[in-house]
Amino acid sequence: MNQDRDVVLRESGLRDGLQNVKAFFPSEAKKAWISAEVAAGVEEIEVCSFVPEKLIPQFKDASEIVEHSLAIPSLVVSALIPNLKGAERGFALGVHQLNYVCSVSESHNLNNVRRLPKDSVADFARIVELRDSNPAWKPIKLKFGLATAFGCTIEGRVDPTAVMTLAEQALAAGADALSIADTVGYANPAQIGAMSRAFVKAFPGVEVGVHLHDTRGLGLANAAAALDAGIRRLDGSLAGLGGCPYAPGASGNVVFEDMVFMCEAMGFRTGIDPEKLMAVRRIVAENLPGEPLHGTFAKAGLPKGYIPAAALAQAAE
Amino acid sequence: MNQDRDVVLRESGLRDGLQNVKAFFPSEAKKAWISAEVAAGVEEIEVCSFVPEKLIPQFKDASEIVEHSLAIPSLVVSALIPNLKGAERGFALGVHQLNYVCSVSESHNLNNVRRLPKDSVADFARIVELRDSNPAWKPIKLKFGLATAFGCTIEGRVDPTAVMTLAEQALAAGADALSIADTVGYANPAQIGAMSRAFVKAFPGVEVGVHLHDTRGLGLANAAAALDAGIRRLDGSLAGLGGCPYAPGASGNVVFEDMVFMCEAMGFRTGIDPEKLMAVRRIVAENLPGEPLHGTFAKAGLPKGYIPAAALAQAAE
Repeated sequence: MNQDRDVVLRESGLRDGLQNVKAFFPSEAKKAWISAEVAAGVEEIEVCSFVPEKLIPQFKDASEIVEHSLAIPSLVVSALIPNLKGAERGFALGVHQLNYVCSVSESHNLNNVRRLPKDSVADFARIVELRDSNPAWKPIKLKFGLATAFGCTIEGRVDPTAVMTLAEQALAAGADALSIADTVGYANPAQIGAMSRAFVKAFPGVEVGVHLHDTRGLGLANAAAALDAGIRRLDGSLAGLGGCPYAPGASGNVVFEDMVFMCEAMGFRTGIDPEKLMAVRRIVAENLPGEPLHGTFAKAGLPKGYIPAAALAQAAE
Repeated sequence: MNQDRDVVLRESGLRDGLQNVKAFFPSEAKKAWISAEVAAGVEEIEVCSFVPEKLIPQFKDASEIVEHSLAIPSLVVSALIPNLKGAERGFALGVHQLNYVCSVSESHNLNNVRRLPKDSVADFARIVELRDSNPAWKPIKLKFGLATAFGCTIEGRVDPTAVMTLAEQALAAGADALSIADTVGYANPAQIGAMSRAFVKAFPGVEVGVHLHDTRGLGLANAAAALDAGIRRLDGSLAGLGGCPYAPGASGNVVFEDMVFMCEAMGFRTGIDPEKLMAVRRIVAENLPGEPLHGTFAKAGLPKGYIPAAALAQAAE
């Protein structure tokens, strides 16, 4: 990976996008989605969440989806875990990366996982310990996601110092990687830039990703600000799936295909062909007939004279 | 104006937004739109284009709209002019600012105004001369817009050097201000940042604005990149009006109210209350029943704990 030119874009739609969708997205269609994304060049996909079936029935096929994904060579398979129980399932299946989530906002964390952030950190430390207890699980990467890092629907403003402190605690507890998340779509590019720079400076050598929502239309602006600050890992969701039930019609995660186009146009190699993602949009559209699909790339296509980042880089060499 | 904290956002919807709308937007509704924006704090509006009525019937009421606008104290009234004839109309009415447009792309300029860019510059020099010939017209500001500065639907890539050269020629011809325009929505934040920085460096003391379209969803990302590079004048269009007839459903100009929210959230004072712009959306919606209204602020509203830029600045002082 060339820090100047390469960026890893992770598809989160199958997890963050589908978790708010009431209708069950058929398992075969989930697999087709994953395979079509890999065909488009996607290197990393968050394929599910290990939560109890009674809480989110959408993920009742988690094991089946993970097995399909792990059979694809080259794909980095990741999944969300809310607690130790979720981690145990992920370890047993051999998922490459497990994404633990803890909100910086105390009220949000209490609401979401019914405990204080400090108790979540203690839980995470037990997960690290469990992973380390079994040599077969050693290669599994544990990522710590700092949710509501830029604002919270319950508490409003979130103190950036609290974000840094929680990140330090997560690393002390054994996190292999961090994710700074604008869980509720409150962030602006100035915030994203400042926080990203602070993380890059404070945690050199640590893999830091940024997870963005597009609730107020700033998803791509925030992504560009993160790139500008040196972040090279971003999450998105095909067609911007993942709308909040409290903001009808509002987009959810940042639109994955638009982000691919933006990065490539800016000269960042994603390895992904944005036009091939149009086939994935069709799979999603067929299986979510009621859901609005967001994004402008699907409507406008590539500009005339477009040069993908890899070709730009070659020309420059 | 405080270069660190203030930004001038110009509403272009009545010109760039409406020029592609076939249905005539009633004159009274245009006036209501303008008045409601002023009530929301908007300081500058491009209210029409001085083009022949047979070419764009939408602007047949240009004089009436200009007179209404000029009667509003504090409002900076601007209008587009494609040639000397348009300038003569603008001078006679006493419009505060006239925006001349010339494409950097030769093919685009030939298509648009049937002459080469160098002939457009010569035409612009005659406009400056005419303005200077009448002491009453002296205060009228002449802005030179560099269209297709980031790419062209006919020629594809546009050489940044050609943009700089045309800007130099425009200033030599007497331009009071410059506008760099992503006319066809091709730009990305890296391009916008580089070009903006080049302009700020090459033309110190010259007022430089950036005019953005949102065709590929990068409008706000590009606006943030321009701000980051020191640009303090941006155009937008209420509800993102101005879609290209060749990209159905694609947004046109960058969504004005979303841009207001972004700037304010980032700490840039716009003087505009984004919530008050919702009244303007209703005027537009009532008078353009078939037209899609873009934007996410209208759906999501202000985040909890939001502090407008002016209050943020006060708290910092």
